[in-house]
Amino acid sequence: MPVYTAPTRDYKFVLHDVLNITKYGNLPGFADADGDTVDAILEEAAKVSEQVLAPLNRVGDVEGCTRHDDGSVTTPTGFKEAYKQFAEAGWMGLSQPQEYGGQGLPQVLGLATGEMTSAANMAFGMYPGLTGGNVRALLAGGSEEQKQTYLPKMISGEWTGTMNLTEPHCGTDLGLLRTKAVPNGDGSYRISGQKIWISSGEHDMADNIIHLVLARIEGAPEGVKGISLFVVPKFILDENGNPGERNSLQCGGLEEKMGIHGNSTCVMNYDEATGWLVGEENKGLKIMFVMMNEARLGVGLQGLALGEVAYQNSLAFAKDRLQGRSLTGPQNPDGPADPIIVHPDVRRMLMDQKSFVEASRCFVSWTALHGDLEEKSDDPAQREKSGDYMSLLTPIVKAYLTDKGFKSVSDGLQVFGGSGYTEEWGMSQFLRDARITLIYEGTNGIQALDLVGRKLAMHGMRPINSFFAELDAFAASGGSEATQPFLDAVAATKAQLKEATDWLVENGLKDFNNAGASSHDYLQLFGLTCLTYMWGLMAKAAEAGDASDPFYSNKLKTGRYFLDRWVPEGGMHLAKVKAGAASMMALEAEAF
Amino acid sequence: MPVYTAPTRDYKFVLHDVLNITKYGNLPGFADADGDTVDAILEEAAKVSEQVLAPLNRVGDVEGCTRHDDGSVTTPTGFKEAYKQFAEAGWMGLSQPQEYGGQGLPQVLGLATGEMTSAANMAFGMYPGLTGGNVRALLAGGSEEQKQTYLPKMISGEWTGTMNLTEPHCGTDLGLLRTKAVPNGDGSYRISGQKIWISSGEHDMADNIIHLVLARIEGAPEGVKGISLFVVPKFILDENGNPGERNSLQCGGLEEKMGIHGNSTCVMNYDEATGWLVGEENKGLKIMFVMMNEARLGVGLQGLALGEVAYQNSLAFAKDRLQGRSLTGPQNPDGPADPIIVHPDVRRMLMDQKSFVEASRCFVSWTALHGDLEEKSDDPAQREKSGDYMSLLTPIVKAYLTDKGFKSVSDGLQVFGGSGYTEEWGMSQFLRDARITLIYEGTNGIQALDLVGRKLAMHGMRPINSFFAELDAFAASGGSEATQPFLDAVAATKAQLKEATDWLVENGLKDFNNAGASSHDYLQLFGLTCLTYMWGLMAKAAEAGDASDPFYSNKLKTGRYFLDRWVPEGGMHLAKVKAGAASMMALEAEAF
Repeated sequence: MPVYTAPTRDYKFVLHDVLNITKYGNLPGFADADGDTVDAILEEAAKVSEQVLAPLNRVGDVEGCTRHDDGSVTTPTGFKEAYKQFAEAGWMGLSQPQEYGGQGLPQVLGLATGEMTSAANMAFGMYPGLTGGNVRALLAGGSEEQKQTYLPKMISGEWTGTMNLTEPHCGTDLGLLRTKAVPNGDGSYRISGQKIWISSGEHDMADNIIHLVLARIEGAPEGVKGISLFVVPKFILDENGNPGERNSLQCGGLEEKMGIHGNSTCVMNYDEATGWLVGEENKGLKIMFVMMNEARLGVGLQGLALGEVAYQNSLAFAKDRLQGRSLTGPQNPDGPADPIIVHPDVRRMLMDQKSFVEASRCFVSWTALHGDLEEKSDDPAQREKSGDYMSLLTPIVKAYLTDKGFKSVSDGLQVFGGSGYTEEWGMSQFLRDARITLIYEGTNGIQALDLVGRKLAMHGMRPINSFFAELDAFAASGGSEATQPFLDAVAATKAQLKEATDWLVENGLKDFNNAGASSHDYLQLFGLTCLTYMWGLMAKAAEAGDASDPFYSNKLKTGRYFLDRWVPEGGMHLAKVKAGAASMMALEAEAF
Repeated sequence: MPVYTAPTRDYKFVLHDVLNITKYGNLPGFADADGDTVDAILEEAAKVSEQVLAPLNRVGDVEGCTRHDDGSVTTPTGFKEAYKQFAEAGWMGLSQPQEYGGQGLPQVLGLATGEMTSAANMAFGMYPGLTGGNVRALLAGGSEEQKQTYLPKMISGEWTGTMNLTEPHCGTDLGLLRTKAVPNGDGSYRISGQKIWISSGEHDMADNIIHLVLARIEGAPEGVKGISLFVVPKFILDENGNPGERNSLQCGGLEEKMGIHGNSTCVMNYDEATGWLVGEENKGLKIMFVMMNEARLGVGLQGLALGEVAYQNSLAFAKDRLQGRSLTGPQNPDGPADPIIVHPDVRRMLMDQKSFVEASRCFVSWTALHGDLEEKSDDPAQREKSGDYMSLLTPIVKAYLTDKGFKSVSDGLQVFGGSGYTEEWGMSQFLRDARITLIYEGTNGIQALDLVGRKLAMHGMRPINSFFAELDAFAASGGSEATQPFLDAVAATKAQLKEATDWLVENGLKDFNNAGASSHDYLQLFGLTCLTYMWGLMAKAAEAGDASDPFYSNKLKTGRYFLDRWVPEGGMHLAKVKAGAASMMALEAEAF
């Protein structure tokens, strides 16, 4: 059975040594997040992940979910009980507003515990995960009555939530959607249509399921300008706000997926189901994108989480499996062979994984902290800057961490040799589960287009210029013998990213296909630059740490590996960016 | 259901335009491979792949193989009938020696048809594939009596063959193997032990299964110097050479794998089974490596094959799926949206796949032709050179084509978005099937070590120097406006590979860990150089082709994409090679 130990030590390093989150104690929510509380929460989250969720991960994969003839869905053995325990312990409300029953703690802490949930059991984590996204959308766009009606029950976990966007003929291009809403005249609507790929769409774990559904009100404009958002509960609430009459919606089938079998991915059929408008008519997409942006950070987190758990398992195998001798002479002379961790190429895969997950953990936390500051800082300049960063960096967190997370899981599987290819050792499940993260909440190609087509140019390029200034200041901040190489690497990747940005601005406007053609490598270069910066921050924090604790010196060693073995990818991405669209678009579609 | 159309047009280009194989008509086997015969064989192979094997691919994945209580194994519905048809049509003997019933055609043709088999149904292709490896081993090491006894029946396909190397505690490190052989005094041995991961180990498709088993004769030296090879038939032959008494060996279980479900991957238990020594005592590994080298080319071919079929399916989807509008204005103004092939980032994935599979096809064929020339050329210098190339390039074909083949399949899946993640569209199976190719027949890490630790230095570096001279001559051969960029790219990647080689020679000998640490990126750079050279050869051939046939001008366009988007990876790999072992080995094992 796969192993999982939550990385609490590493989170303490990121949150305290690197980000020093207690210094924000004057801001709402942060006051409750003093050092001891943070540590206690991390340790509790570790416990539930290791002891409750991880043991159900393979069960979820093997059993999957079962749909019955009446459209009801049963989750895998143990999921229902685990969910009850998870909800009752308050995990779903950790960083939700106190006025609706949450604990109001910073998002950065919510994401830290979220990594543990996803690493232990990604399919399980999607039930609370989607609920959290739903809560955010209602917070952003719902009426006060809707908030009072739905949020406390979702924040307590008594009910769960979903997002309904995709239809069979439209995924990425929501302008094509056909689900219809007809006004009933009493403020409610009759919703009809089919939605697919609805994660957690139907299950047996909660008393009600609150669907948020994109639909087109009769007579609304075509395209994206005619899309409205509706809240459509599985059970319509009675006058006391309790689940009453069954709404006319149903799970029409479960998708047969490569992985995340423990999550019920539903075809949802709405047949004149009763729903209520959220926000204004035809302005549904804007609210959905609030939720989506949150969700995209969460998906990047899943990439990291699966990278972490795959790393841990491949490490354990590499220390245990005896095969061959070290190239420099036996390291385990009394045994029949050396553990394979002595072999440089095995270590290459382990170090690639380790240096990636540690930097990614810091990157997600750093970004999430900006999300908190955007919302809560008392300094308008900080709120603006943090908001800029959140917009700019969300597609990078989503796409880079899932692209490289998948590669990392695949490397972890490779360490196992043939055993990695069996289901028994669990690495296959991690790979199969991880593959969806490159696709959902907007494919990674869409993230890249969002980055170059929207985020780069917004506010007259204020966000990226602000980020460049931060990198420049850091690179010039002065380093010791140990940290100067990190500053130099930040300067080097930043210079490459700047060159790529200049190229894009000049050539992407001349020919939009240049922007599209270079978007993938631009995002990759941007991600690399971010992780290099994180290693810079971590190196400085590690140098300042207790010299007698090997944690800190090992951190620096891992960072040096990143400089040697990841940073060289920058020049390649820059060259590909500058290759532009010409050869990519040269073949006529018929000529393929 | 996934589509598959065998790439016969492209093979005609590679075999005729690029390699001009009819010019070897004076050599044994090649005389029968005139232009018309080659084309007819390609077309027949296309038919059986498209019409017989491809339709069974998903059946094989869904049903898998079934082991019964008596140890017998049933293959998926339709496999038995398809195998009969495949064998009776003579496909298993295509490039086997005529004296044992084969058709004696060149290997290069066998691999071409092998790509089609693997692309259509990889799990099925492994039954004849392993049989072919077994035949090669007996040809290399068996006595004339053994050859007469076993080869004709395997070449006709009446019987199949296997390779038994791995044991639970030893995969890569065969020196640890424990399977025992005790002489019976009559020339036969009693073989006892457990082998795992035995592809096609037991099934219902053939009258007999001929196992080749590595074992240690009682009293033999420890380690790799005490390993002998035995032929151990499932049914011991009677005096007429027909299957008689059941041997005491059994399938003890089937591995539960991520993919290739249609192939029976068996735990094989030998319980004093009767076997006969092949070759000399304690020299078994050498013979097994003959077979292994052949098999490694075949695994590289699988990487290419899955890349090809995934490409075809993602291309069909990209032309069909309507989503969004071209960045430069509607291309399908009468439809609700444009086909996604108009989007540059979709095209990036398609062009990455296309330019990879076309170069890989040429590379496998070019290498296989050297295999034929090594064996059949009447010029000793050519035989030596071709033998050098086969040794040097086999690990590159195996590892580079499977690493990049897997990436290519993953890109193909990505083009499908959410549909790629369902089992229904077939992309999941291609990805799951493809993942094993990075592992079996020696993990890709082992290939890299074989390259830098053995192949590079052999014969005083004669093979690589000979290859460098060929690249230099090609780069200096003079190009037109269309082909000069290809010559320049060959010169550039060769210069990087030379620099990496010089670095390895200098630093790998000083510290073996440097060689190990850099082996992966060295192999990647080597693979890139080979594919760049193939694009150079193809560009020249395309330029010489019929100018009115757009096949040739499109070939040049695809090649230009490769120069823009693949060649820039060389500098990155060179930088990683030169990073050496220091940061990779800096962490103590306990510090992970």
